[in-house]
Amino acid sequence: MSELARLSINSETIKQWSLEELVAGCVEAGVPGVAPWREPVAAYGLQRAARLIRDAGLAVTSLCRGGFYTVAEPTARKAALDDNRRAIDEAAELNCPVLVLVSGGLGDQDRDLKGARIRVAEALAELAPYAGERGVTLAIEPLHPMFCSDRCVVSTLSQAIDLALPFPAEQVGVVVDTYHCWWEPDLEAQIRRAGETGRLALFQVADWITPLPEGVLLGRGQLGDGHVPLREIRRLVDATGHDGPVEVEIFNAGMRARDGAEVLAEVVQRYRDHLV
Amino acid sequence: MSELARLSINSETIKQWSLEELVAGCVEAGVPGVAPWREPVAAYGLQRAARLIRDAGLAVTSLCRGGFYTVAEPTARKAALDDNRRAIDEAAELNCPVLVLVSGGLGDQDRDLKGARIRVAEALAELAPYAGERGVTLAIEPLHPMFCSDRCVVSTLSQAIDLALPFPAEQVGVVVDTYHCWWEPDLEAQIRRAGETGRLALFQVADWITPLPEGVLLGRGQLGDGHVPLREIRRLVDATGHDGPVEVEIFNAGMRARDGAEVLAEVVQRYRDHLV
Repeated sequence: MSELARLSINSETIKQWSLEELVAGCVEAGVPGVAPWREPVAAYGLQRAARLIRDAGLAVTSLCRGGFYTVAEPTARKAALDDNRRAIDEAAELNCPVLVLVSGGLGDQDRDLKGARIRVAEALAELAPYAGERGVTLAIEPLHPMFCSDRCVVSTLSQAIDLALPFPAEQVGVVVDTYHCWWEPDLEAQIRRAGETGRLALFQVADWITPLPEGVLLGRGQLGDGHVPLREIRRLVDATGHDGPVEVEIFNAGMRARDGAEVLAEVVQRYRDHLV
Repeated sequence: MSELARLSINSETIKQWSLEELVAGCVEAGVPGVAPWREPVAAYGLQRAARLIRDAGLAVTSLCRGGFYTVAEPTARKAALDDNRRAIDEAAELNCPVLVLVSGGLGDQDRDLKGARIRVAEALAELAPYAGERGVTLAIEPLHPMFCSDRCVVSTLSQAIDLALPFPAEQVGVVVDTYHCWWEPDLEAQIRRAGETGRLALFQVADWITPLPEGVLLGRGQLGDGHVPLREIRRLVDATGHDGPVEVEIFNAGMRARDGAEVLAEVVQRYRDHLV
């Protein structure tokens, strides 16, 4: 099997590319999977995007993203849940098995972290059956704790697994993203637990580098540039029996300023060097 | 008892002040404790600083900081441990019961997080008896995981307690700092555990605000400006039976650019509003 057989490229990694460019670039480079965000799919048109990717012979490994349902106010909360149902529909239309969920953070002046976390569990209860009926697994992504207040109140793999466990495994799983969880003291045990409970729905990779830029969002590192033992974590993931895609999702301002084909070639090379 | 009876001001909170100014300002404001960093103490002179603070009737609640012993190279490691022994001596001279330990991070290109964490435990084993003989408790401070690679491989309260437990409680404890641990999913249980095991050596407070600035270090929030339920966490700490100082340690570029007395008055007011 090709060394690249499990590689997938998340559209945020080469955000300067349109969906069409991403698909053509991956075909050209021998990359078999793509993980688009909803925005480029919507820009291209949902059915059209589904056809484009299918005709190119690529797999859609995940759709990013649902979530952002921590809000308490009823109207906003209903809108958030409706939007998540649409995201599930979009994943189904794309023949994509996994919808990534980023929970959302706290509102302005909001200090009720516990309450927000409870609302995450409640939102999952509303969405899980809907996803299950459409053959889509909701994948709870714990984000690095530095995003706890503004993006995601789910902060650790252990917490994500706990949130997933009340639901059938085909409905709700978790994302292991090396960028977000590399520092976790019990990472090895939690990856094993995700595997044993059948919850390891998606594996994403990026490296950790410093200094973090202002706002920290676009500071992820190219594979091999930072402190994450990527191959070691991949082995832990593989050891659970997981044989799904390895999705490269790197938010990096510098990479987005470069030529897309050059970035993709570099990602492929770094993947060979640090993950295969 | 005065509402301010447990308040202590860390020198980094008003870094624009010299040690002399900090002591005078705290006396003037009715703040009974100070927590100096080693640098302003050295700048003023150790014995002289001890006398200054004692004569002013203030308590030295902690000395910041020891640690930075994750390095593997033998010469650098020996130098780090020697420096920690000096820090312990300084704490003893200042009649300060607690030395804060920030472990240090990873070297350039270093991906061996596990190894660094093992070296932290080894360093503690070398330093704990030395500290115990001098009446100083080493307080392991877990830093927010965003500092894992460059400042501190100890990232959670649970991990810090695990590191402390092999040693007598009077030799090694932990720091609960709201800035670093407010997001922890099991915060309540871990604060309780720190209390039950006699390890809650120091309580520090700062608020969490976003966006984080470049480098993230100087982005802590003034009390009440952010998302941390300060009073709730203080109650958890107090419920363990802890009756030690509440140390305000805020690294904030904006606060450092203002008049020191104005900043102190604001801190005192915010402390009354959000922590008493």
